[in-house]
Amino acid sequence: MTQSLVGGFEPPYYTAVFTAIRPDAPEGYAETAATLHALVRDIPGFLGYESAGTPGGIGITVAYFRDLEGLTAWQHHPEHLEAKRRGRAEWYDSYRVHIGKVERTYGFDRDRD
Amino acid sequence: MTQSLVGGFEPPYYTAVFTAIRPDAPEGYAETAATLHALVRDIPGFLGYESAGTPGGIGITVAYFRDLEGLTAWQHHPEHLEAKRRGRAEWYDSYRVHIGKVERTYGFDRDRD
Repeated sequence: MTQSLVGGFEPPYYTAVFTAIRPDAPEGYAETAATLHALVRDIPGFLGYESAGTPGGIGITVAYFRDLEGLTAWQHHPEHLEAKRRGRAEWYDSYRVHIGKVERTYGFDRDRD
Repeated sequence: MTQSLVGGFEPPYYTAVFTAIRPDAPEGYAETAATLHALVRDIPGFLGYESAGTPGGIGITVAYFRDLEGLTAWQHHPEHLEAKRRGRAEWYDSYRVHIGKVERTYGFDRDRD
């Protein structure tokens, strides 16, 4: 799988860490997730997101924003609010959101010949 | 699977978001991860961690600390430093670390009858 990690931004920037427990493929979830992933790209200051999910375990999504204004705009987006409402009603057993200001970042990339 | 999410802490607190791309089960990785997961519990101010990994995709680990002192102590722990050195030499194709101060948090738990 060819892919690359989100990152390389100059601090400060903001992360929304979303952790969740839910059934593996509840009805309507995948369609809503695809819609939201398309919509968030239009938010000013959106830098990217990453998701990982262990089958049968928890899921973690991290969304990166340049500033708190963009992150807040996304939190209040009508389709996002509706998805969260449906998520609480139908999909999630539990979730947590941690909104943080990133003060330091670093990384590593293996050299390729 | 019975499990619960990390959270419910009063801000401010700190998160280290670690995102990585690596082969699924490189030699020595699981043993080192288990050792580190035991050691980090002794760090003052350590609040918990969560990991999720999509098979064939990326892995995300979030570690939670009460303060930056605890987080920094863990970053400089000798066995953690050695694991990171080995990770760069042998395991990871790439990784990113984002260290943030959490300013706001909320969550949801489904009511159980």
